[in-house]
Amino acid sequence: MACPYRSLYNIECCLRKGAINKMINVAILGSGGLGQNMALLIEQKKDFKLVGICDRSGYLFNESGIAGITIKQSKTIDEIKGSHISSNSIFEMISNHKEKINAIFIALPNLPNEFIPNVAKEIIKTGYKGVIVDALKRTRAVEMVKNLDTDFKAHNILYLTGCGATPGLLTTAAALAAQSFVEVLDVTITFGVGINNWETYKATIREDIAHLEGFNPEIVAKMTDKEIVEELNKRNGILELHHMEHADDIMLELAGVCTRDRVTTGGIVDTKNPKKPISTNVKVTGRTFEGKISTHQFVLGDETTMAANVNGPILGFMKSGMWLYSLGVRGTLTSAEIMPHFGVAKENYLDIQGKQSRDFACKIPTS
Amino acid sequence: MACPYRSLYNIECCLRKGAINKMINVAILGSGGLGQNMALLIEQKKDFKLVGICDRSGYLFNESGIAGITIKQSKTIDEIKGSHISSNSIFEMISNHKEKINAIFIALPNLPNEFIPNVAKEIIKTGYKGVIVDALKRTRAVEMVKNLDTDFKAHNILYLTGCGATPGLLTTAAALAAQSFVEVLDVTITFGVGINNWETYKATIREDIAHLEGFNPEIVAKMTDKEIVEELNKRNGILELHHMEHADDIMLELAGVCTRDRVTTGGIVDTKNPKKPISTNVKVTGRTFEGKISTHQFVLGDETTMAANVNGPILGFMKSGMWLYSLGVRGTLTSAEIMPHFGVAKENYLDIQGKQSRDFACKIPTS
Repeated sequence: MACPYRSLYNIECCLRKGAINKMINVAILGSGGLGQNMALLIEQKKDFKLVGICDRSGYLFNESGIAGITIKQSKTIDEIKGSHISSNSIFEMISNHKEKINAIFIALPNLPNEFIPNVAKEIIKTGYKGVIVDALKRTRAVEMVKNLDTDFKAHNILYLTGCGATPGLLTTAAALAAQSFVEVLDVTITFGVGINNWETYKATIREDIAHLEGFNPEIVAKMTDKEIVEELNKRNGILELHHMEHADDIMLELAGVCTRDRVTTGGIVDTKNPKKPISTNVKVTGRTFEGKISTHQFVLGDETTMAANVNGPILGFMKSGMWLYSLGVRGTLTSAEIMPHFGVAKENYLDIQGKQSRDFACKIPTS
Repeated sequence: MACPYRSLYNIECCLRKGAINKMINVAILGSGGLGQNMALLIEQKKDFKLVGICDRSGYLFNESGIAGITIKQSKTIDEIKGSHISSNSIFEMISNHKEKINAIFIALPNLPNEFIPNVAKEIIKTGYKGVIVDALKRTRAVEMVKNLDTDFKAHNILYLTGCGATPGLLTTAAALAAQSFVEVLDVTITFGVGINNWETYKATIREDIAHLEGFNPEIVAKMTDKEIVEELNKRNGILELHHMEHADDIMLELAGVCTRDRVTTGGIVDTKNPKKPISTNVKVTGRTFEGKISTHQFVLGDETTMAANVNGPILGFMKSGMWLYSLGVRGTLTSAEIMPHFGVAKENYLDIQGKQSRDFACKIPTS
């Protein structure tokens, strides 16, 4: 445990303190529903500043800060005063301003699967050093980002993946709940989404449709908006999603909580009604060290929107990411890996448990 | 963000990896209900090994590991074969074996308030370097431990406080839930405990009684067991606890989630019935960036005992503590501070929110 570089660590300690409390300059890639609402949220926060944002049309960079409402009111970035028209806006914005950006939020729709992993490779090429956070959903996409671990390490990047609502808030709640158990038997995530108008969250709805039987990201990427509307109308605006390919599974597996086959994600999306059809929740069932099977549950308030439950956690993980970055952490981590670490059970723990209860008739309180 | 010690960090990276996966040698201070059950839990875990335990009578140290059942079956440590009789067992055990201990769990009853802070000072004197974890409950006690921050830093110790159930599991669940909100308005923790027989958890019940009107830690420390039983009988075995002095408040304040006056802890303890009188839960109410007030809730399964909900999280935070230690973190942290960091709102965020909604009639989906 002795530290050979104690004096350096002491210097680092001071640097660290600064890093935690200093302003975090954020760049957002994408200005759809997610990116726009993130701009509004950042404007309300004390220690975050939006300095850059881009979309297909161009990018806007301003070290003194960009007003959230400016982004919310603009259809495309190129129509904002001071913006730069560019067909290669991600690369140009980051290359030109990387020294002034502490953290990047990738708020782009991930269709097809390799899209965001490719954006990550693009960021590496700019020479950017710092934190990157995403709200990726699919298992395969998170796997691809995880595979870039060595590249991120080599280029001084800490990439945090799966930091939205699910995966993200609910996955990390599951990782925390797991601590009461020796073995986690089941994690079931169920989300409810209600929206007035699918057009506000086009990309999200498209990603949801990609999970339905007979669809996949490639098929949906080729569908026109009219075809999407037809599909929604066929279903009375309601999408019922079961056993989705959702990265909560691989994230809990990588965090050592349980194997991915024990994690199920599903939900109901009502695209014609802002009321949630069901309360979003996660149930974690496990066996305690005393051999009891039980279920913890985490339920989100119905009034909290997708925007609040994705963007809030993104900033929380980003802030932790800044701390970990200042401590020297590099590579890819999922949000679940920065939670209290789970210590797995021995393969024969059930035998040990049996022996313990045979050897001693325990009388243990419940709390 | 550039790291001036990159090459050292790269070396550290390798060390870190080892640190995360290697066996954690644990010493437990105290062999009451909490310490005994921790010994059973550790026996079922792959990457933890119980190497030392002590009580008032003496200590037992064995680098190859100590069987959980041996501890559970012994009334006092000095009756175990191989133990050392000592009236100064904490100091002697740690002084003699500090090089073989990675993490210490303080499982001692904290009566009076300064008891565990004094134990921490005692550990510093041994020259121990590593991680220390406690399950402290009272605000004042956590404050005292927090005040030792500089001493721990100077002596290469990372001390994690408030890592049990409440404070601990429920506090950190609150810190996580907070991420959906810009401002946290209220955190209410309510626990239910059911035990067959108060004698199994004497120290815990005494601490609970200290929270009742007309009592305090000093008064309870002087009460005989007979007086405790009389007090319990007067109340039909049921302790109703309201507005307890519980460190969840200071921990959430230190983590920047909300001021301590917004955090309330209470519960019902039935000392004559193993069934929980109420499900243990935490409710977190806040205002989202869109101005909506909502409540997230985290509910523990009734079958999970106090032993499972305290000792499990203790090991989770300990494992994270080992990781943070390997990254150079020293001093005192509460369990809430190692969760995703909360970014506070600007003082005038409500004005900004008002302006944002006036400037743009937002149509936002709910999830």
